[in-house]
Amino acid sequence: MQDGTFISVGHPQETPRGDAYARDCPTRQLLDRIGDKWSVLILLLLGEEEMRFSRLKKRIDGISQKMLSQTLRSLERDGLVTRHAFATVPVTVSYGITALGRELLAALRLMIDWAETRMPDVVEAQRSFDGRAALAH
Amino acid sequence: MQDGTFISVGHPQETPRGDAYARDCPTRQLLDRIGDKWSVLILLLLGEEEMRFSRLKKRIDGISQKMLSQTLRSLERDGLVTRHAFATVPVTVSYGITALGRELLAALRLMIDWAETRMPDVVEAQRSFDGRAALAH
Repeated sequence: MQDGTFISVGHPQETPRGDAYARDCPTRQLLDRIGDKWSVLILLLLGEEEMRFSRLKKRIDGISQKMLSQTLRSLERDGLVTRHAFATVPVTVSYGITALGRELLAALRLMIDWAETRMPDVVEAQRSFDGRAALAH
Repeated sequence: MQDGTFISVGHPQETPRGDAYARDCPTRQLLDRIGDKWSVLILLLLGEEEMRFSRLKKRIDGISQKMLSQTLRSLERDGLVTRHAFATVPVTVSYGITALGRELLAALRLMIDWAETRMPDVVEAQRSFDGRAALAH
């Protein structure tokens, strides 16, 4: 992987170094995974403490067993989450966050803080939009 | 909408004020929309300059007409993007970013900076994971 395959969008006056706008850019795929709401919720929980699979499932209302397994595996593969299996009967599996995951989490928190703070503005915008749409019909 | 419906995850020592972990929490739905890779790419482009639909489509390789329309409409409804139609023949439509959208973009940039900087670590983690998975079979 070359630096040239990364996007650089913080400096609009420069030509982007890479290109997340290109469909095969790995950064685009990474963006899709790290922005996924399940990934975000899992990283937030593991940022608080190590947690067993069953506990994660309980905390994240509505996630299926399969989706939780898949997302954890994807996070583990990306080096964001660690998995520990304990030789109990039955085997218990616990998940934690890596240093890399914690770095990402710090960035994600800003996005979440924004959502938390600005939700009323978003709801207001939606009402206004829906009102205009209703008038147009 | 009450403050009580928002999540607060930055303070693990406190009981969360709201609950994005609950399936019907609007913040969870908002998280899903703002983390979406198409939304991120569109906001990044509009953060540079106002842009026509056709130009956006050209810049974002692989996005379908329908997906671009839907995502722009969703961003407009959330108050993140503005839409201007000009009475040319045929009508031309231009999109810009709102102040609210620009705020979100600032938070998203950190996530993108992380992805840009840490992509080699992620790739290394993937290689290591795949190597272990291959050994296990």
